[in-house]
Amino acid sequence: MQKILILGAGKSSKFLIEYLANSAKAKPRKITVADLSTELAEKQTKNLPQTTGIGFSVDEKNQREKLIKDADVVISMLPAFLHPLIAKDCLKLGKHFFSASYESDELRKLRNDIEEKGLLFLNECGLDPGIDHMSAMQIIDREKKRGNEIISFKSFTGGVLAPESEDNPWKYKFTWNPRNVVLAGQGVSRFIRNGKYKYIPYHMLFRRLEPIKFEAIGEFEGYPNRDSLSYREVYGLEHIPTILRGTLRRAGFCQSWDVFVQLGMTDDSFEMNLPEGFTKRMFVNSFLPYHPEKTVETKIMELLPWVNEEILSKIKWIGLLANDVLPKLKGSPASILQMILEEKWALKSEDKDMIVMQHQFEVKVGSNTKRITSSLICIGEDQERTAMAKTVGLPLALAVELFLDGKIKQRGLALPISPEIYNPLLSELKNQGIIFKETEELLD
Amino acid sequence: MQKILILGAGKSSKFLIEYLANSAKAKPRKITVADLSTELAEKQTKNLPQTTGIGFSVDEKNQREKLIKDADVVISMLPAFLHPLIAKDCLKLGKHFFSASYESDELRKLRNDIEEKGLLFLNECGLDPGIDHMSAMQIIDREKKRGNEIISFKSFTGGVLAPESEDNPWKYKFTWNPRNVVLAGQGVSRFIRNGKYKYIPYHMLFRRLEPIKFEAIGEFEGYPNRDSLSYREVYGLEHIPTILRGTLRRAGFCQSWDVFVQLGMTDDSFEMNLPEGFTKRMFVNSFLPYHPEKTVETKIMELLPWVNEEILSKIKWIGLLANDVLPKLKGSPASILQMILEEKWALKSEDKDMIVMQHQFEVKVGSNTKRITSSLICIGEDQERTAMAKTVGLPLALAVELFLDGKIKQRGLALPISPEIYNPLLSELKNQGIIFKETEELLD
Repeated sequence: MQKILILGAGKSSKFLIEYLANSAKAKPRKITVADLSTELAEKQTKNLPQTTGIGFSVDEKNQREKLIKDADVVISMLPAFLHPLIAKDCLKLGKHFFSASYESDELRKLRNDIEEKGLLFLNECGLDPGIDHMSAMQIIDREKKRGNEIISFKSFTGGVLAPESEDNPWKYKFTWNPRNVVLAGQGVSRFIRNGKYKYIPYHMLFRRLEPIKFEAIGEFEGYPNRDSLSYREVYGLEHIPTILRGTLRRAGFCQSWDVFVQLGMTDDSFEMNLPEGFTKRMFVNSFLPYHPEKTVETKIMELLPWVNEEILSKIKWIGLLANDVLPKLKGSPASILQMILEEKWALKSEDKDMIVMQHQFEVKVGSNTKRITSSLICIGEDQERTAMAKTVGLPLALAVELFLDGKIKQRGLALPISPEIYNPLLSELKNQGIIFKETEELLD
Repeated sequence: MQKILILGAGKSSKFLIEYLANSAKAKPRKITVADLSTELAEKQTKNLPQTTGIGFSVDEKNQREKLIKDADVVISMLPAFLHPLIAKDCLKLGKHFFSASYESDELRKLRNDIEEKGLLFLNECGLDPGIDHMSAMQIIDREKKRGNEIISFKSFTGGVLAPESEDNPWKYKFTWNPRNVVLAGQGVSRFIRNGKYKYIPYHMLFRRLEPIKFEAIGEFEGYPNRDSLSYREVYGLEHIPTILRGTLRRAGFCQSWDVFVQLGMTDDSFEMNLPEGFTKRMFVNSFLPYHPEKTVETKIMELLPWVNEEILSKIKWIGLLANDVLPKLKGSPASILQMILEEKWALKSEDKDMIVMQHQFEVKVGSNTKRITSSLICIGEDQERTAMAKTVGLPLALAVELFLDGKIKQRGLALPISPEIYNPLLSELKNQGIIFKETEELLD
């Protein structure tokens, strides 16, 4: 009997649980899904074969260790900061560990012990990080094998609205964690371009954009992620002159979002404590210079000269210029802004989300240079079976499945960047409708 | 015998030690100056009556407690983060405590115990905080006593160059801690103006300026300090519609400084690790967009459209556009920028510093409103006897002197905001050449 323990039964676990349950049918396999909410764990496992949902608190050491002891493989879908705790339990109790989160320094400290015990701790096996690594590495390894040299690699991912649901002037709604969206990009962003190191502070990020086109669905724009430099080593591209990883939004989004950034409304570093009756318009005005006569609209346009009527109308549409009382008076500017945005950027029941990813390579083939573009578009089915849940959960499910079937021999602390993992995984993702479309063109 | 212990013999202690030593002559008084550097402590006390310099490490608990036990009054000129440690010793050993630093939350936790033991812990008794509190409170209390209502209070302080030393295009050099100058203004700034709460993020700070004029020495500009709001309570101005505290620079300085802020060169939140041979010009370029042909100068002017030839010439003068190797390759952008600036903004032996302070009040007198302007200009004598050392050290010295002479009856955790402290203190500061000039005008 092979026993899988899934910790966390939230939105992102939907496809993960379903896939593993259905593939368990013909096998001597048992799946336990544990969540802080017993109700949610039971709901997410209802009618699924060989699968049980139970309540579980990460703080209860005895229960946690008992659950892990009883499993062969542990998949952590808990918030990332809890992973080291679970991973240490797994190490102690000799269990394999899988997650879709970034490999942390705390996990790296366990590297030798994991290897010594012959365990596999596979992280970054979701969408981004996850599918991005796998699909990029497949191309990188292939081109290297052909004797070609990769001189530029840019990679962009975004969780956005499906085109049919883009029914507001922002063409945006919260399709995943709103807090992460509001804080996205904070800290400095670093990358290298034609051998030149580049650093972008947060307040400049949303004007340093790259236009990105998808044939089927049109224009997007990408802004750099925090750290692109460390991926040179991960991808075996130590001497590549250009590497950039970024986040995608619909074209035009960033310039409007930048109004919030410039005014200081995405700041999460201090608490406001605003008086009773403070309105959304007063909230905006609190970030603008005082003037006895000028309107908020005039002051925005004077302070941020690139703000035009179209951008202003988006700010207005989102409700920020109205004299409605704030939904929240205490909290960081970012948390107050989030509550305001959530009122307008909530998904309607028929709305669908979409995942977009694009890799752009420049590859030297003899004396020529070719550009390879590899694009993924994945549209959600509904608000439960979202593209985000599918692209985060399926790679994890497939990796665990391959591992339990004995098809992954690798052990130690690992990322999904070796052919034995990415080849079968990408091939099965294709069967599940997660398909990259690759084009090549010769550059002049 | 009254025994004074001064911890820290750095630059700011110069006038403090001298004044206390000279005033001790006719009295049964002994002063001990303790510093990590025995040499410095001995140098700073050389030839001074009744005064001894000794070596001392704050980490050696036994020595620390022995020194404090042997004193009646302890003055801490150590870095601010060490004050709670010293204050706790003083509390335990029943000694009075004086500092020129901000009253911290950690000290506030001791409030009840300090009162119970009948001790005086007087903080914020230097320049800013210190002289600013005293000079403002003298006017506030006077106007309140006359039955007038203060409806606006703005207060600005700056440590700058004496006009005769303004011999570079920036009209600026480091006259105090360079690191603090480079990081000045980080975090959000909050104040209230005509009843409207205002929040300014760091990246907007150096364009939200107030012009400030001093009759004798011309034009300055002030940018808001981090927290002006909390001073409403300190100054007994809970319902004042306008309160703003700020920092002064020579007119024109901030717009040029803003280039560094906008590019991200004052960021202290991450470490750069630059390759051998990286030049100052490459450092600037790393914060600019990539372009195969455009120069650094062109890219600065395109990214920051308000940068004109004059500003660019200041950036050039400071050495940032030259192909000299960086003085430091590892460290935060702020720390690298600091090293570059220190090469050019070092004081020459004949240079003098200057302290400027200006309070602006709007006061309702019956149906009229008058503006009170109270200005301080203090010019240093040389690089040892600086205006900064004088204005930070003398108030502390005077407070301790008054206290030991029995003229301060107040006990507990205190700021220098009561008449029994500020009246004699300001009067003696006048004798020492630290003089406020007050003007009044009726507003239309």
